[in-house]
Amino acid sequence: MAEPASHFIGVDFGGTKIYAGVFDASLECIGTARMSTKAPRGPEAVIHRIARCVADAVDECDLDAKAIAGVGIGAPGAVDPQAGKVVFAPNLPGWKDILLKKQLEQELGMRVFAENDCNVSMLGVYQVELKAKPKHALGIFMGTGIGGGVVINGEAYSGFNRAAGEVGHMVLQVGGPECGCGNHGCFEALASRTAIFKRIHTAVKQGQKTILTDRLGKDLEDMRSGDLRKAIRKGDKFVAKVIEDAAIHTGVAVGNLLNLFNPEVVVLGGGLIEALEDEMMPIITATALDHALPGTAKGIDIRACTLGDDAGITGGAVLAQRSVKKA
Amino acid sequence: MAEPASHFIGVDFGGTKIYAGVFDASLECIGTARMSTKAPRGPEAVIHRIARCVADAVDECDLDAKAIAGVGIGAPGAVDPQAGKVVFAPNLPGWKDILLKKQLEQELGMRVFAENDCNVSMLGVYQVELKAKPKHALGIFMGTGIGGGVVINGEAYSGFNRAAGEVGHMVLQVGGPECGCGNHGCFEALASRTAIFKRIHTAVKQGQKTILTDRLGKDLEDMRSGDLRKAIRKGDKFVAKVIEDAAIHTGVAVGNLLNLFNPEVVVLGGGLIEALEDEMMPIITATALDHALPGTAKGIDIRACTLGDDAGITGGAVLAQRSVKKA
Repeated sequence: MAEPASHFIGVDFGGTKIYAGVFDASLECIGTARMSTKAPRGPEAVIHRIARCVADAVDECDLDAKAIAGVGIGAPGAVDPQAGKVVFAPNLPGWKDILLKKQLEQELGMRVFAENDCNVSMLGVYQVELKAKPKHALGIFMGTGIGGGVVINGEAYSGFNRAAGEVGHMVLQVGGPECGCGNHGCFEALASRTAIFKRIHTAVKQGQKTILTDRLGKDLEDMRSGDLRKAIRKGDKFVAKVIEDAAIHTGVAVGNLLNLFNPEVVVLGGGLIEALEDEMMPIITATALDHALPGTAKGIDIRACTLGDDAGITGGAVLAQRSVKKA
Repeated sequence: MAEPASHFIGVDFGGTKIYAGVFDASLECIGTARMSTKAPRGPEAVIHRIARCVADAVDECDLDAKAIAGVGIGAPGAVDPQAGKVVFAPNLPGWKDILLKKQLEQELGMRVFAENDCNVSMLGVYQVELKAKPKHALGIFMGTGIGGGVVINGEAYSGFNRAAGEVGHMVLQVGGPECGCGNHGCFEALASRTAIFKRIHTAVKQGQKTILTDRLGKDLEDMRSGDLRKAIRKGDKFVAKVIEDAAIHTGVAVGNLLNLFNPEVVVLGGGLIEALEDEMMPIITATALDHALPGTAKGIDIRACTLGDDAGITGGAVLAQRSVKKA
């Protein structure tokens, strides 16, 4: 109780889970809590669960609400940070123009700041992992979908309609596989976990042999990125080829981004990279350098994110700290 | 002779021609001069010709060298503007680490500022055509190659190695046609004048019928973008299809850039757009909007450059004016 309002909370939530972390003033994480999202119950129920998850994390650290200076939350969709509003979240039923900040402030009695989840993760990577050193940096977060975060001149860059950094919907293959966005050949349709799983499912249905079915059955139920890593390490050439192709497409995407943004650092994160870093990163880096124009990539650092699953909550805490300072 | 050092000169040069313009303090062009580059003669001879072209433009306006506050020049390659050095220019024989600024200052007795030509053109478009109003803007210049210029927060953005905005080498079609850069499926390999001419040449060799051969002979000698426009207007369906495909690829590229940079304005310029604006722009705009994620393109302006061939010299004058002010 001695230290009033010196801590920050970061919250990361998606279609399946809510994850909250309490951070001290030096951005050290001192406790976390997790909860399932129960997205089908709708926005009000989800916001209530987020509040419970935050309360659990605070309690976990033997703190009370008065110790919290602010909460930063990343939402999986288009967010208007001024209004604290989730404009649209494609994977959360009913999330259209939801006043997340206001409703969560009422539930928690704490100040809340909301942003797009990839922007928040990039903020965490930039501030804590990169120590805010590079002037220009890009983050690519690969999981179910593929999102990005852009830092230009040391500040999060979001463009005219706050929609910049949508790296997942950069077309790499005109006429390629259909994407969830309705277009074809997007980076996300070629290299996300969803795209990879779809390719494996289709091939298995067509008779492709793979170690994966030994373990998961012929319907490949509950397949995870880690299963792919295990299959590759056991010598499954089919799975190795699928992951190689995804890594090549990711390398082409990174090459494009080097030629367009010419950042100092590109950080790749998300569940897919976390599980398959050793398999994917060497191919991604080689392909990206091969596609960068001469001189473009000199001294540039292409690396896997070390914050892993904590990028989102760390970024949320950074967002809260920065926003409280500004206010 | 009354007004000392109140004028600026912009210079645009490439593999075939040098173009210089004299501008007054309000950036009105009061006179121009043109000269062939004679690129095969090497850097020293070309720099000497640039100096002569600048002197011609000054003389054209009944001014003398004392009236010129500075010269801004755009070079077709990688430029280090601090050193005033052309690091590399792919289409100019012998241009490697050429101290353009220093050598031209010695020849002219005027202050000289050098930058990449697409960055300079974008500066002209931004300052004079867009009145420096949008915070974030992109320029795409389509001719022999495809280059770009990026403005973020009202300033030219060039990234870590001053190589940002290389839109022509964004891969849109993995495994697509070979590009001059050595990779495959770059925007430039799909939609530049070079790519379009190559496709037409190949098809004609394979027996494709087109109005173009009536006018230019079976070898299509001296074909220009304007010939394509005339052929389309006379009902040549083959040429119309080639240009439609190039416009669709350009639209995909613009859509990618909307999703990545989310600028307020995208300006398309260069000889190809100037000649085929009516044929290409409607397709480019529709395709780009179709590829932008929901919300991204709201209120965004996609337009053809009205400065045309003068974007480069105008930008050169803006560069000189800004640089003199800063110094």
